[in-house]
Formats: sequence, C-alpha cells, structure tokens
Amino acid sequence: MTTAKRKSDSPPPRDVPNVVVSRLSLYLRELQQLVREGRATVSSSQLGKMLGFTDAQVRKDLAYFGHFGHPGIGYRCHDLIAEIRHILGTDRQWTVTMVGVGNMGRALLRYKGFAAQGFRIVAAFDIDPRITDSTIEGVPVHSQQRMAEVVRKQQIQLGMITVPAAQAQEVADALVTAGIAGIVNFAPVTLSLPPEVALVGVDLTTELEQLAFSVANRIPQR
Amino acid sequence: MTTAKRKSDSPPPRDVPNVVVSRLSLYLRELQQLVREGRATVSSSQLGKMLGFTDAQVRKDLAYFGHFGHPGIGYRCHDLIAEIRHILGTDRQWTVTMVGVGNMGRALLRYKGFAAQGFRIVAAFDIDPRITDSTIEGVPVHSQQRMAEVVRKQQIQLGMITVPAAQAQEVADALVTAGIAGIVNFAPVTLSLPPEVALVGVDLTTELEQLAFSVANRIPQR
Repeated sequence: MTTAKRKSDSPPPRDVPNVVVSRLSLYLRELQQLVREGRATVSSSQLGKMLGFTDAQVRKDLAYFGHFGHPGIGYRCHDLIAEIRHILGTDRQWTVTMVGVGNMGRALLRYKGFAAQGFRIVAAFDIDPRITDSTIEGVPVHSQQRMAEVVRKQQIQLGMITVPAAQAQEVADALVTAGIAGIVNFAPVTLSLPPEVALVGVDLTTELEQLAFSVANRIPQR
Repeated sequence: MTTAKRKSDSPPPRDVPNVVVSRLSLYLRELQQLVREGRATVSSSQLGKMLGFTDAQVRKDLAYFGHFGHPGIGYRCHDLIAEIRHILGTDRQWTVTMVGVGNMGRALLRYKGFAAQGFRIVAAFDIDPRITDSTIEGVPVHSQQRMAEVVRKQQIQLGMITVPAAQAQEVADALVTAGIAGIVNFAPVTLSLPPEVALVGVDLTTELEQLAFSVANRIPQR
C-alpha cells in the first residue's frame, strides 16, 4: 500500500459525509469476501452490483480518498482492502470495552465480526454482582466501580454502551472521565458528550423505519 | 396534518438518499422528546443543535418532502411528528416477525422502542424445541416449519433476521416465500433477495468503523 496515489486535492476527513464512511465498510466486507473466494481484481461495476450501487457511485465514494483503480484492471482487491482499512483507521488494533452485559451485551460479546475487523473487546463492565469478576465469551466482566482503573491500565480506546436508557448518560460520563476517545451507544437515548469524544448512536428502530419507508413507497432495493 | 403543503416539485421517494430517510428518524425522536417536555414549537436551528446538525441541514432534509415550517414560529412539533410519520409510513401499524430467538433476538424482543414507533412484533420463530411453543417477552415463539402458515394468517409484513450468518439466506428465502414485504437483517452476511422485497442490513461493525474513522481523524462530532 502506498499513499502516493492519494489525491493532493482530497478533502479533509471532516468534510467526508458519514454515509460515505459507512459505505467504505460495505466495500471492505465485499472485497474481503472476494479475496476469500480467490479473486485478485474487481471492477467498480462488479463491486457496485454486489451491493446494489451504480459503478459511478462506487467511483465517487472512493474518489473522496484517492485514485485506487488501474485502467483495464479495475481495483486490486488486496490493495483496496489495505487502503480502506488505512482510511478507516482499522489497519491498527483498537481496544474496546462494553458497559452492560445483558442480552444485547452478550449477543455483541459473542459476535465474531468485531475482532475480524480489528476491534478487540478486552473488558466488560456491569453492576450485577452475579456476573462481575467472571468471564463471559472470553471477556473479563468487572464491576462498574473499577472502570477508570481498568480503562487506564488496559489503555482502552473505544466504549460500547449496552445498558438501559436510564443509565446510559451516567455510564457515558464515567467512560469520558476514564479517558475513552469514542463511544458507540446502543441505548435508545441521545447522549450529550464533550466535543472531543466521538459518538456513534445505534438506533435499532431507524432500520425498521427505513424498511417501512421503502415498503410504503414500493422502492426496489436492488 | 395535511398534504396540501407538500411541494408539487418534491422528488419521488426513490430519489431521496437513504441517509436523509435515516435522519428523519432522528428528527422524529427529538420532536417526540420535545412534546413529552411540553414544547409546542421548535426552530430548525434548535432542532439541529440537539443533533449536532446545522439549521441549513435540517431545512434541506425536510425540503425533500415539503414545506413544514411557519415564518416566525418554526415547526409545530405535533404537526411535524405527524408529517414525518406519514412520510416514513409509520402513521400506520406494521406487523413484524423475528426469526432467531438467541441473545440478540431476546434483546430485541425486550426493546420497547419498536412498539413506540408503530412496529408490533406479533410472532417469533426458532428451531430450538426448548423454546418453540413458548412465549418470550409476550411474543409467541413458533417452530420455523410453521413460518408460511403463521405469516399468512397474521398478515405479517416485515421480518427481522437474528439467526447465525450460515442460516440467514435460507431464513430470508423462507420469509420471501411466506410473502413478507421487507427484511431487516442482523446476521453478518449479505443477503440476495428478489427486487420487490425491501432489505435493510444491520452491520454492527460499521458503527465501530465509523467511530474509528472519527477518532483516527480527530473529528469532533458536535
């Protein structure tokens, strides 16, 4: 991988729409699947077709970050995977903690996809003494009172909040105090955080609403 | 609520970017919170500030669907809630089924947010005989073999897939055969569906990747 191909006139990352960043994840997943199938190259129209996008959309999304295609060849799968991981920052390992080990937390601890993309859940926290000081899905579960100590000692960078809505802000404040750099919030509530801490909110109802919009308006998805 | 204010030059719904539709969900949630707090009106800049968007972004998003603001007043919260629900199609009830009642399925069955926005989970399916023919979180769990019969009898419109990746396509095919109109897929795999069936994929790693991108590029979120 080289950054020499990167466009000198690329916009700063803060000007890239969030939706483009989320599509990078989709491209990455398809490219990884292609490599598993033994494919070396892929065209923008092939990549688009796999995801229901036009080839122009694929090219436009990637053009935010540089010129990655080769005339007559298309994209080299391995190279483009490396480029996208570099752009996303997932060419390094991230240490992650989860606060709240209920059903949602357990489902996420069991989910193999995080580690495959560079996110290592190294510690979890809960307030239930029946599960603190135990290990669930290979991840040690600590009392929430030990959050600052454990986050600092293990240099944990990102946090996932899977507690009930009523506790989410308090947990977020504790994660910020402990020095976390970014939070993914699964609780159905809007969090207020200082501007230097990144926040991505997961609102599971949004997915159903997008589906309702498509069905109500009879929009073919592919 | 009236549709008379709707713009005659509104684009057809298929031309509205998905990201705009997903932001409608965010506006809706904030408006509902404002109404609970007793607020009657809100300006685009107030609404934007609550979500970290500019007032121009809020106005542009809503302008896809019509003119909803009033000079000197802003938006009437109740009216805008009704308009957004009408646009999303959630001014009616949707019947939903879930296939796969593991940890993720149980977490979603417990989640109160779906019903609050018009999505009623009326049946679930699993292959584990220890939980089929039981009721979990008030929802009857049936054997997957009864899917076609139950979906038709209860006129279920939308399906959520929460089975492991290896079973997801088979479950999706069965839901399509049973006559479902749209699917939200939580399994970490890309599904192939006929074009008349709407599909929204939930890739939980995407949220962590968006967070990594923000942290790696130090982009303040608000």
